[in-house]
Amino acid sequence: MKQFAVGVDLGGTNLRVAAVDETGALLEKISLPTRAQQSRETVIREMCEAIQRLSERLAGAGQLAGIGVGVPGIIYMETGTLRQSPNLPGWENFPVRREIESVLRTRVWLDNDANVAALGEQWLGAGRDVRSLCMLTLGTGVGGGIVLDGKIWRGFLGMAGELGHLVVAENGVRCPCGGQGCLETESSASAIVRKAQEALAAGRSPALGKLVQQGSAITSESVYQAAQAGDAPCREIFASAGRYLGIALASLVNALNLPLYVIGGGAAEAWDLFAPAMLDELRRRSYIFCEGSTRVEKSMLQGDAGLYGAARLVFQGDNR
Amino acid sequence: MKQFAVGVDLGGTNLRVAAVDETGALLEKISLPTRAQQSRETVIREMCEAIQRLSERLAGAGQLAGIGVGVPGIIYMETGTLRQSPNLPGWENFPVRREIESVLRTRVWLDNDANVAALGEQWLGAGRDVRSLCMLTLGTGVGGGIVLDGKIWRGFLGMAGELGHLVVAENGVRCPCGGQGCLETESSASAIVRKAQEALAAGRSPALGKLVQQGSAITSESVYQAAQAGDAPCREIFASAGRYLGIALASLVNALNLPLYVIGGGAAEAWDLFAPAMLDELRRRSYIFCEGSTRVEKSMLQGDAGLYGAARLVFQGDNR
Repeated sequence: MKQFAVGVDLGGTNLRVAAVDETGALLEKISLPTRAQQSRETVIREMCEAIQRLSERLAGAGQLAGIGVGVPGIIYMETGTLRQSPNLPGWENFPVRREIESVLRTRVWLDNDANVAALGEQWLGAGRDVRSLCMLTLGTGVGGGIVLDGKIWRGFLGMAGELGHLVVAENGVRCPCGGQGCLETESSASAIVRKAQEALAAGRSPALGKLVQQGSAITSESVYQAAQAGDAPCREIFASAGRYLGIALASLVNALNLPLYVIGGGAAEAWDLFAPAMLDELRRRSYIFCEGSTRVEKSMLQGDAGLYGAARLVFQGDNR
Repeated sequence: MKQFAVGVDLGGTNLRVAAVDETGALLEKISLPTRAQQSRETVIREMCEAIQRLSERLAGAGQLAGIGVGVPGIIYMETGTLRQSPNLPGWENFPVRREIESVLRTRVWLDNDANVAALGEQWLGAGRDVRSLCMLTLGTGVGGGIVLDGKIWRGFLGMAGELGHLVVAENGVRCPCGGQGCLETESSASAIVRKAQEALAAGRSPALGKLVQQGSAITSESVYQAAQAGDAPCREIFASAGRYLGIALASLVNALNLPLYVIGGGAAEAWDLFAPAMLDELRRRSYIFCEGSTRVEKSMLQGDAGLYGAARLVFQGDNR
């Protein structure tokens, strides 16, 4: 009998559930809001109800092989417990895997959202022709995932791939992680907003000044629009984010020598604005990159990478 | 019949050859100078003669399974060609593996010296109780090797593990690799000498001034002696090297989450002078390290790590 897996992307804002078969074909997808202000139990119950609806509708298409769940945050892999999550406040030390398994009585694979996105890209996206890759997701923070020989590299505590906390600016700004000058403090959507607010406060950006006068908030999207319209300080903000991405990539290329580095997450949409500076910096700092065949590419599956990767976890069946 | 492998450490100054059995027991070791000012062919011939002498003497102990060779520099793994080596000038694009094989008619495994040192430490040294580790060797440059699940991680071109070129100081000094602010520019023996010369030129170090007056050269050893004797600027030079090691380790811990990081090479002897600053910096920049069970240790096999690792390559037999 044919099998399908359910992949879940449990974000702080949206909860998405997809049924995917072993060839990577998407059978059906459900999206609903994550009611993060409700209790953790309510969110889990609503997720489980969505999974059940999907499974029942697909009963004719095959058997449910298991459920893969990508969550933002750090996970204790052995217990399937969320250690902490910036997007799911109050979920600290919540045994997510056990909770889902006890409701659905089906096996659950839990992993970090950027890890499963990396796995999805390797399975069906930008990396479908390679066995190993590294992915950076540029969002509120910067997530990371490393896939080696077709499998997520988790490290001995399951905490590997925290690439948003590569040090790129030794004397840079404080990072929520406790460190300083982490990639996340320079190249995330939040970093772009912070730098825009600094430019605004210093009166350097007429375009941002106008936006605020019109009552608009400064978001990474509005900074992007201003940069696209030619505002020099906003263009420099994206170039700066690109330079630090280039520094992080140089360290990754020199350490891991992988064939592919994928940039995803919402802020990756600004590729044209940050990629030239990123690649310049990378060329300057990595002779291995200059050997010529290392690729740096934009995510192909975009927001769906994590859904596919979560389903892939189930078919690989090796984790836990 | 029992087997033994020959491990070779082909350095710019010394050439060492050891016979090692499958249990890791050292059967015999030969050391001779590398006459790097002679032709490459002469060095290879002398190396092969040493290997032959050793094999003949051990003919009763078992059969020669193969030869593993660690060389400083970057290697094209597929062809066994040295791309470039700072310590073996004139060896660029020299097909080292083929040259040795054509003389000895025995299979040869070639790898980077820091890679084989990491493998040696994992087999028999500081990492004999773990499957994965990362090693940094502090010498004229800073070498690196990554062992994952018991095997050297080579990357797709065989150039992985160039950890001396992790970026630790975004605006730091130029590195011979073409980059800037690489770990090697801050924590190698050469970096220590450079910083000592700066302190001397600025008249900041009475101890170094005295050394030079007595006609001594500034070496990493003399800076070490001065620091041990209490010279504050020299102590700060080692603390600074330690801080940058801590930055590099934080990036490695956050990216790879390995159980062990080993510090080797000649300058690792100054452990007591640089380790406190290194560990402080690492704690500050890596919450994963603060989880508690990640180890950072001095090399156990020291100068012999590469000999054992080169022999191990032969027994693993998976490379090429």
